Amino acid sequence: MDTNKVKFVLVETSNGGNIGAAARAMKTMGLSDLALVNPCEYRTYETYARASGAEDLLDNALVVDSLAAAVADCTLVIGTSARLRTLSWPQIEPHEFSTSFEAAGADGKIAVVFGRERSGLSNEELALCSQLVVIPSVASFSSLNIAAAVQVLAYEVRRVSLQAETALVATPTKKAPGELPATHEELEHMYKHLESTMIDTGYLDPGNPRMMMPRMRRLFNRTGMNRSEVQLIRGLLGSLQKAINRINSSA
Amino acid sequence: MDTNKVKFVLVETSNGGNIGAAARAMKTMGLSDLALVNPCEYRTYETYARASGAEDLLDNALVVDSLAAAVADCTLVIGTSARLRTLSWPQIEPHEFSTSFEAAGADGKIAVVFGRERSGLSNEELALCSQLVVIPSVASFSSLNIAAAVQVLAYEVRRVSLQAETALVATPTKKAPGELPATHEELEHMYKHLESTMIDTGYLDPGNPRMMMPRMRRLFNRTGMNRSEVQLIRGLLGSLQKAINRINSSA
Repeated sequence: MDTNKVKFVLVETSNGGNIGAAARAMKTMGLSDLALVNPCEYRTYETYARASGAEDLLDNALVVDSLAAAVADCTLVIGTSARLRTLSWPQIEPHEFSTSFEAAGADGKIAVVFGRERSGLSNEELALCSQLVVIPSVASFSSLNIAAAVQVLAYEVRRVSLQAETALVATPTKKAPGELPATHEELEHMYKHLESTMIDTGYLDPGNPRMMMPRMRRLFNRTGMNRSEVQLIRGLLGSLQKAINRINSSA
Repeated sequence: MDTNKVKFVLVETSNGGNIGAAARAMKTMGLSDLALVNPCEYRTYETYARASGAEDLLDNALVVDSLAAAVADCTLVIGTSARLRTLSWPQIEPHEFSTSFEAAGADGKIAVVFGRERSGLSNEELALCSQLVVIPSVASFSSLNIAAAVQVLAYEVRRVSLQAETALVATPTKKAPGELPATHEELEHMYKHLESTMIDTGYLDPGNPRMMMPRMRRLFNRTGMNRSEVQLIRGLLGSLQKAINRINSSA
């Protein structure tokens, strides 16, 4: 999934600030193809302030006078809706995008269409969509701000594209030596050190061990310690033993 | 996963409009628990305009003067970050929330913490977090508007809660009191105790702390400690201090 294949279309947005915030939301997720259908006067200070670095998307936006013109080059048109319509459309949730995108074909261009702030998409506009994506908001307060809806769907588009990349090249990140997982042997040395320190301080009574070492092991084993953390703990234990030795020799 | 268990915390947000938009974003996803740490003057027209029906969240918000106070009752504190830090924190992606939430325990309260618009969270604030959630934005333009970030994470919280409802497996096993996750406050007491012991033994030089406490925090926070384990570690620290005190009083 190439994010360049995805176009976001805003239909008759009435607030320029929302257009700016939508452009910013798209750009954070690597999307750049923005189309505006009959927008309000959006070349304003507020629009550009809310775009906050995504001015290029605003300057390069396709401005057209109908949804049909905006999606003419697309093989898949997905409408957005906050609520169920009486006429039930094929519906997906945002995290199901990948299935839709596969269906659009490798060379296909995909449009995600956002309706008006108050009234959404008209029935004529919905008729141009082959499916609806519904953000799962609560029924009692279901209307997302349009730029917030753009952010959620741009995020899901990016997730799909990253998943595809990861599937292609699973490149493990190179780790610093200290970040490498501690070996079993290093952990055993640490536990021996811990046990002798606990005996030295009087915390662990070898005659009545009260499951202390098994509990310590459970705690540290669960973490998946790396080498530098084993050193950190052993340094602490060493300092405890030095303190005890000082006490004993001064006694 | 009950969305009532999730608290969103905004730290030193400087734009009231963002607070309003964040409240709206939360409410669309069924979240209502909002905490503000040292917010700007937010009882303004713009805040309430952008809240657009979520005024109740603003009116009921907890306003405090430190992150520690905001998260004192939480068993899991998740910070948000747009980018990687030098000290690598345990990181998750938003769609991995469910795993974190399970780790927090059935009765645990979870905080998701959002930093300042420009500078994010300070290192001291990050030290209170046991993991970071990173929204996978593009490297070249990585900074989401704070309300947009709130919308994405609120959406993922809701997805987790809906999945849990669907799965209908909400039968968490009853745990013994010691097995319950330690609260943030209990962990902070343990860290204070650890720090003072490390200073007493000379392991930690307050003049040259060498990231020791952040590394200890990273290690123990990653584990998800329960109450009895906090007691186990504090017992060890206490045993050393008792030995020191015995010597001092006999000297």
